[in-house]
Amino acid sequence: MAYFFSRFSRLRSSSKCFYENLRTLNFHNFRTQKNAHARNVMDFERAKKPWMTWSSSVLPLALAFSAGSLALKPQFNPSLCDAPNSNSRLGGKDSTQFVVKGSQKEIPQVLLKELEAICQDNMTLDYDERYIHGKPQNSFHKAVNIPDVIVYPRSEEEVSKIVQACNNYKVPIVPYGGATSIEGHTLSPNGGVCIDMSLMKRVKALHVEDMDVVVEPGIGWIELNEYLEPYGLFFPLDPGPGASIGGMCATRCSGSLAVRYGTMRDNVISLKVVLANGDIVKTASRARKSAAGYDLTRLMIGSEGTLGVITEVTLRLQKVPQHSVVAMCNFPSVKDAADVAIATMMSGIQVSRVELLDEVQMKAINIANGKNLPESPTLMFEFIGTEAYAREQTQIVQRIVSEHSGSDFVLAEEPAAKKELWKIRKEALWACFALKPDLEAMISDVCVPLSHLADLISRSKKELDASSLVCTVIAHAGDGNFHTVILFDPTQEEQRQEAERLNQFMVHAALSLEGTCTGEHGVGTGKMKYLEEELGVEALRTMKKIKTVLDPNNIMNPGKLIPPHVCL
Amino acid sequence: MAYFFSRFSRLRSSSKCFYENLRTLNFHNFRTQKNAHARNVMDFERAKKPWMTWSSSVLPLALAFSAGSLALKPQFNPSLCDAPNSNSRLGGKDSTQFVVKGSQKEIPQVLLKELEAICQDNMTLDYDERYIHGKPQNSFHKAVNIPDVIVYPRSEEEVSKIVQACNNYKVPIVPYGGATSIEGHTLSPNGGVCIDMSLMKRVKALHVEDMDVVVEPGIGWIELNEYLEPYGLFFPLDPGPGASIGGMCATRCSGSLAVRYGTMRDNVISLKVVLANGDIVKTASRARKSAAGYDLTRLMIGSEGTLGVITEVTLRLQKVPQHSVVAMCNFPSVKDAADVAIATMMSGIQVSRVELLDEVQMKAINIANGKNLPESPTLMFEFIGTEAYAREQTQIVQRIVSEHSGSDFVLAEEPAAKKELWKIRKEALWACFALKPDLEAMISDVCVPLSHLADLISRSKKELDASSLVCTVIAHAGDGNFHTVILFDPTQEEQRQEAERLNQFMVHAALSLEGTCTGEHGVGTGKMKYLEEELGVEALRTMKKIKTVLDPNNIMNPGKLIPPHVCL
Repeated sequence: MAYFFSRFSRLRSSSKCFYENLRTLNFHNFRTQKNAHARNVMDFERAKKPWMTWSSSVLPLALAFSAGSLALKPQFNPSLCDAPNSNSRLGGKDSTQFVVKGSQKEIPQVLLKELEAICQDNMTLDYDERYIHGKPQNSFHKAVNIPDVIVYPRSEEEVSKIVQACNNYKVPIVPYGGATSIEGHTLSPNGGVCIDMSLMKRVKALHVEDMDVVVEPGIGWIELNEYLEPYGLFFPLDPGPGASIGGMCATRCSGSLAVRYGTMRDNVISLKVVLANGDIVKTASRARKSAAGYDLTRLMIGSEGTLGVITEVTLRLQKVPQHSVVAMCNFPSVKDAADVAIATMMSGIQVSRVELLDEVQMKAINIANGKNLPESPTLMFEFIGTEAYAREQTQIVQRIVSEHSGSDFVLAEEPAAKKELWKIRKEALWACFALKPDLEAMISDVCVPLSHLADLISRSKKELDASSLVCTVIAHAGDGNFHTVILFDPTQEEQRQEAERLNQFMVHAALSLEGTCTGEHGVGTGKMKYLEEELGVEALRTMKKIKTVLDPNNIMNPGKLIPPHVCL
Repeated sequence: MAYFFSRFSRLRSSSKCFYENLRTLNFHNFRTQKNAHARNVMDFERAKKPWMTWSSSVLPLALAFSAGSLALKPQFNPSLCDAPNSNSRLGGKDSTQFVVKGSQKEIPQVLLKELEAICQDNMTLDYDERYIHGKPQNSFHKAVNIPDVIVYPRSEEEVSKIVQACNNYKVPIVPYGGATSIEGHTLSPNGGVCIDMSLMKRVKALHVEDMDVVVEPGIGWIELNEYLEPYGLFFPLDPGPGASIGGMCATRCSGSLAVRYGTMRDNVISLKVVLANGDIVKTASRARKSAAGYDLTRLMIGSEGTLGVITEVTLRLQKVPQHSVVAMCNFPSVKDAADVAIATMMSGIQVSRVELLDEVQMKAINIANGKNLPESPTLMFEFIGTEAYAREQTQIVQRIVSEHSGSDFVLAEEPAAKKELWKIRKEALWACFALKPDLEAMISDVCVPLSHLADLISRSKKELDASSLVCTVIAHAGDGNFHTVILFDPTQEEQRQEAERLNQFMVHAALSLEGTCTGEHGVGTGKMKYLEEELGVEALRTMKKIKTVLDPNNIMNPGKLIPPHVCL
């Protein structure tokens, strides 16, 4: 999901900003500008941020200003919060509250001095930077606080020292990657130290013959694929375009290609991780498979920064396919489309993408692109392999489609035609705003066993259609992963609550169908309240035990993933 | 590895046995006979073992015999151990000791009574049964003790009660599956309770449309595939034929098909696990993918019974391919063969098997089968898919082979011809005994990044050739997973030590090449001493923390996986 999501994110800073044009820039463009000097992933020096100097230049003054509390730290400003006095986000299963509470203590001055000694120029107390880091623009969820300080480590050793220092003073840390997550993963409800990994984005080693690459976590997947292109290799996960590899590990992300290549879980060979005590842990060797001890790699993938800070990732790569075919077809009902997705998977062939879009989504695409596509449930496929095999797969699926009331089967093999066809799916979310240009989007993310997908979508659509809000459906149908884009007016509290109610309806429906509350977006603060229903309190207690033994001071991204009510 | 391994295992019981013919039967046949009534995986009642009644009939007498200690428990017999007075298995990195020491306390009588109340007839104190369970015949490693009691739970609830009872009295438990593991996983160096899962082998639910199946852990992968055959589905991991699904999870096993379908890590959707405190934990929903919390599924896979007892497994299934082609070809050197494996993987096509056999192995095959195959390094391939695609892949690889000095490329498409060709690889280990019929085999298992495979094999072969022992090489070449079968005379201590020395050489060579000490056989007691070199003490400390918090009394398969010298 979330193709080009960050393109739609708008910075709504109410604070005075040192970038005068910041209010009008979208967040993605802002970040792109900031990182303009960091294009060359092999050149670490060039990755240093131009605005860092400005921010850090005030640091000595800041440190000298006050003992025992954060110098230059503004008083907490209630206007930062959308609803600072509302109930906690975890207000029971029917809660539609979205504000993530926390308790912010003053950060010890001595810690700031230690951090400055570690990070030197690469640290800032600048209010605007802290505001941006504390209020991720893609998230429906809002925090009552922002981080006290942002550090930009340049090496694993620096990360280790930062974490050790924070652990000594029991100050929370929030690891910060591409910030494209939408469930509140990077919020700082308790303030503390935000560790922005964007300076650590080197490609440390590429092993073409082994089809793997060792990278620092700050590199984006798009940057990485640009780097890999000359070698005929690529990394096959495609979340929102701003996502960084470290963040993708932390949230166990996937995307439309997961049906063919698996999720982040399946595509990481090894990690290096800094634990709460500063230990640098290597989770596995570079061998493609191993049975040597507990799978710490997988334990860290999806742990959302609550167990450690990822400092190095060894990724499995794929060969760029010789040939691909993109196809599209329409169905009388969502059930017919879902049935074709099942039959395709059951046929034994390996599609690389199977995406489902409902009639509302197709209408949005027509409006946004001036097209005249049939406004009915639609499946889009991608087939890859040798030329002959890609065509053979296409023919097999075409037969399946025709057996399930499918129509208008169109396909493209020429690059321009494929690009044009696939653009429709890629820009689906963007197209939604064509329906209601002034609204925000809340995006659900659930996943069920494939046989339940049609049932889930049918149940959900009944509820969505009965709502006053406009909602579209997009699914990674081959995986049973289902998203709804719910458009709402952020200035209308009842609309926001209705969006959250619809989201909850879909989550409960998915759970009743043996599914999960999140297929790929993660837990963050947004999905914590569903975990017990999905997994049972015994599983959560087990997670909490692991969290507690590895992070006894609860400094690692506290308030995320594990519901606070879980007791040991 | 370990195709038909259990066919070669011989029971060398020195004790009086209630099965008179047990001495002459190989262990696999013995187990097969025992489980003759358990063929129908859907029929739980029929899985009850015939000899259980005999054993359990003496239990009331046993329990009445002595208070505070195990009734009918024989005195510890040093003759049970191959070298009871030798040093610990963990005698430093150059140790070639193979005896796993432990301290055995007397099992509390009250625990036996509790276990009897839980398991009723499905429990035994019979010496021979305990001997068989304590001395797995496939393992190079030997224990000084055997379990005090064997229980055969019939349900998850019984497992939970058994574990809870053992935890209350701090008595060790050893989960016991197919017992095909070769690194000492099922040894009972501290005695205690062996939990034999063989009665829990039901198929609980098959979801054809979702291509998944929910099973109890005692079912074997071969039994499961027999059950799945009518549905056109199969489970694509192929370790030793006696292996059970639960044991395969516990050891994170794989096999020759892992190059195409991944390892156990990639093919398990969800688990249910009984923890040390008796908690029954569901690790995930049945959705194909999820980002909901820590990956407890993967944490348990490969934990070798040290964190929990697996009681239910949801497995991902595959469609039986429409067509397959088996091919074989020869090379002047192992390096040429390994280079072709790399080039094949780099070509982007997806072979389902790429197996490498060296010239010694081919000689063994010739002798064993009366064949006249070229005695040179050999690659065997399997290609699957549609008929056209399988053939296309074959042609692509045939071109690659011819570009790398390969010769004698033969292929088979007819079922009988494929079976004949593949039989060569399947019975490779068996064939080794044709070289030295009276010897035992020690099997190494290391894995390196693919680009290092030729180097690893070259280094290893130099050492192997210089040894007085006969050694053959078999590799899952597509994964960089390399095995050596080292034949030695078990009555000659210096030969046993030489076998272990060669194993150590290969492990250290693999570790120096960014590899792992075990690709698929697991750690058990045999590979513990290499883990620190592979992963570093920080990773081991992390594992020990997790172990300690989930199993504070260290009752779960103690003495395995985590080296005892690791401190928190």
